[in-house]
Amino acid sequence: MALRAALRSKCGLTGRLSQLSSCSNHGRVCVAQRRNNSTSPKIKVDFDQSTGVAVMRMQSPPVNSLSLDFLTELCINLEKLEMDKSCRGLIITSSQPKVFSAGLDIMEMYGKSPERCGEFWKAVQEMWLKLYSSNMITIAAINGSSPAGGCLMSLTCDYRIMADNPRYSIGLNETQLGIVAPFWFKDTMVNTVGHRTTEMALELGLLYSSSEALKIGLVDQLVPEDQVLTTATQTMTKWLAIPDHARQITKSMMRKPTIDKLTSNREADIQNFVSFITKDSIQKSLRMYLEMLKKRKS
Amino acid sequence: MALRAALRSKCGLTGRLSQLSSCSNHGRVCVAQRRNNSTSPKIKVDFDQSTGVAVMRMQSPPVNSLSLDFLTELCINLEKLEMDKSCRGLIITSSQPKVFSAGLDIMEMYGKSPERCGEFWKAVQEMWLKLYSSNMITIAAINGSSPAGGCLMSLTCDYRIMADNPRYSIGLNETQLGIVAPFWFKDTMVNTVGHRTTEMALELGLLYSSSEALKIGLVDQLVPEDQVLTTATQTMTKWLAIPDHARQITKSMMRKPTIDKLTSNREADIQNFVSFITKDSIQKSLRMYLEMLKKRKS
Amino acid sequence: MALRAALRSKCGLTGRLSQLSSCSNHGRVCVAQRRNNSTSPKIKVDFDQSTGVAVMRMQSPPVNSLSLDFLTELCINLEKLEMDKSCRGLIITSSQPKVFSAGLDIMEMYGKSPERCGEFWKAVQEMWLKLYSSNMITIAAINGSSPAGGCLMSLTCDYRIMADNPRYSIGLNETQLGIVAPFWFKDTMVNTVGHRTTEMALELGLLYSSSEALKIGLVDQLVPEDQVLTTATQTMTKWLAIPDHARQITKSMMRKPTIDKLTSNREADIQNFVSFITKDSIQKSLRMYLEMLKKRKS
Repeated sequence: MALRAALRSKCGLTGRLSQLSSCSNHGRVCVAQRRNNSTSPKIKVDFDQSTGVAVMRMQSPPVNSLSLDFLTELCINLEKLEMDKSCRGLIITSSQPKVFSAGLDIMEMYGKSPERCGEFWKAVQEMWLKLYSSNMITIAAINGSSPAGGCLMSLTCDYRIMADNPRYSIGLNETQLGIVAPFWFKDTMVNTVGHRTTEMALELGLLYSSSEALKIGLVDQLVPEDQVLTTATQTMTKWLAIPDHARQITKSMMRKPTIDKLTSNREADIQNFVSFITKDSIQKSLRMYLEMLKKRKS
Repeated sequence: MALRAALRSKCGLTGRLSQLSSCSNHGRVCVAQRRNNSTSPKIKVDFDQSTGVAVMRMQSPPVNSLSLDFLTELCINLEKLEMDKSCRGLIITSSQPKVFSAGLDIMEMYGKSPERCGEFWKAVQEMWLKLYSSNMITIAAINGSSPAGGCLMSLTCDYRIMADNPRYSIGLNETQLGIVAPFWFKDTMVNTVGHRTTEMALELGLLYSSSEALKIGLVDQLVPEDQVLTTATQTMTKWLAIPDHARQITKSMMRKPTIDKLTSNREADIQNFVSFITKDSIQKSLRMYLEMLKKRKS
Repeated sequence: MALRAALRSKCGLTGRLSQLSSCSNHGRVCVAQRRNNSTSPKIKVDFDQSTGVAVMRMQSPPVNSLSLDFLTELCINLEKLEMDKSCRGLIITSSQPKVFSAGLDIMEMYGKSPERCGEFWKAVQEMWLKLYSSNMITIAAINGSSPAGGCLMSLTCDYRIMADNPRYSIGLNETQLGIVAPFWFKDTMVNTVGHRTTEMALELGLLYSSSEALKIGLVDQLVPEDQVLTTATQTMTKWLAIPDHARQITKSMMRKPTIDKLTSNREADIQNFVSFITKDSIQKSLRMYLEMLKKRKS
């Protein structure tokens, strides 16, 4: 039923579908292939010393899925920028057409050992912790669809600019796949759009069009697609005018309680994820989902 | 003063007024009469095995007041449905004209022994706990006014559809009667409409017209009165498309902290209610209120 | 950079600027002068026994800065009113043109001993505690700009009516000066406009025009400037219709957790403020800010 629901969903999983389709003839081999490809960087960072602003482009074809390799590379880059005191602002965007990020790589959750699943989940946590607690000004330039983990990445930023395109969607749609957004995904969304909107969005696994997302406050601003990055750059200038020290303390004050909830429960959260995702019923759901994608492709 | 304030209130107590008027020549005898009538069910449940959806109609004339008998019957029915794994969704509506539920039965709070008051309050808690933590998809089909406890029932549901009728009102108006919505009524409202709206609504005991209720998010949707139930049924179909397991875990994650606050303080909350409601000053307020209703009637 | 940012800010610091300008030839001497003037009351209270409503006018030229003297006088007046059981409502407004209150007096934070800074901060805490926990119905009649501490005062009230004038602004703009709104300022704002709006407002130190403030819920109502006080009086009548006891318990239920956070951390909060504000870097920022104001004046 999760599968049918997901396929019925009029938007948002396009990215993931195309990703999976592209692997459909190879199954798990495809993962190995991608790992072999991991020498070509999945993340491209351009840092402008004169402005103190870095632009991070996600460039992992086809849909910037958050695989373990991707997350590891992302975190290494974030750490470098965070430690460079001359870098004050970070704009995150996508080099892939039509998608910001399709979210967690489903191949990392299917048919993997508990150890590997745990390693993967730790990397997801790490990405969130690094982004949500960043001392940098972070702006999401959302130039395509952004379901699930892609939405989470956007939510960690200080400001969200999305392409004004009704075909792009954003949201935490985990329940549609029969899985559950963990408490810190939920907390991040509650902090952004409030309790009630989050409750309904997560129970139904809602994906919002860009204009709906603006209306509920899931994104802050819509601009024509070709202006997403320039608007992000202009917005950054406004944020850079604020003294870093005061802004950073303020940001930490707003986010620390949410961050502390994960840091003090990190291991339990990993165990929780591993025991859930390795369940026969969940693995069966994922297998059916992948098989349906193969059929769709052929 | 509470009484004058309540009578000045332009809307929402109609239901309660008419209920009390109908008893006004009998006083407490009326309660006894109603108890003798308790063999005729106050709750009617139609469960459609083919869809997995139950419709629960409140049919306790005149205004579906939440008496101890009513609450007991309601809870028994809820428990039955909850335990029936084939029942996935529940629509709650009213068979009484113009009113969803007038809320807590004031006759249960006036001139009663502390023991009886405590028993009553425990039933109110039980109703809230069962509804707010239900594993079923719960939709309120609010086809009439829904003050106080009636509003609380609506707030426990996953989705609220209200008749688009400016004469129907909804809200937690306890302060207008000189009594206080307990912390878990408050928490449920904060979870729905946020802290500030709740603060002002509870301090003033505000009752909102259906369109005002939609505007502040107290209900999710308005439809013409004769389409409330059909819309609820259509909406249910959308919710049924989501895998139960993922939806239930998500719902629990959203609501558990609020529920835990009451379950870990249940006895203290009962004591608190009993000592408040049995105060001479509060009983005097309730007596004056009832007397004013009698005069109004005659 | 804080200074430049503050000067770039198109609104809201006017009051503070004019205050400081008026002292600019005297520096710290000016503070002494003002202290000598402290015999002329900075607060004027008119209490109408017949309605039970007091009007408190702030009349400390030029911009009702919250100096230690001002706060002390304010708290003494609040305590008197709070203890007078016949006083049920309080309207707070300004006698100064164009400004409600410019917020904390920057002269109390510059070049002062740690002891004096601590004394000042304790008075700021006391003002907030008294206002936010008041048993009286409190209405802010915001007839001018209300940045920083002025905004905080407004936020503590039960209801906020602001003059509909695009030149008046309101907000917690501390970060623009390189300082940080403490957690209880933040909590008060979160309780009013929610987490996300507060996060962005505090990170950027945003000042909102009156119409923007209405839109985000920072104030409840806009009226023409000459009707601010009469509207406050009319609104008060509505609130007075609610039984005091029930309203007070409700108000306390909504606000107690926020108040308890400060009362149980009061000394640590003072130490935190003192050690922050007496830092060389912060003092240097404040000095540069004051010098820039002098230059601007000349």
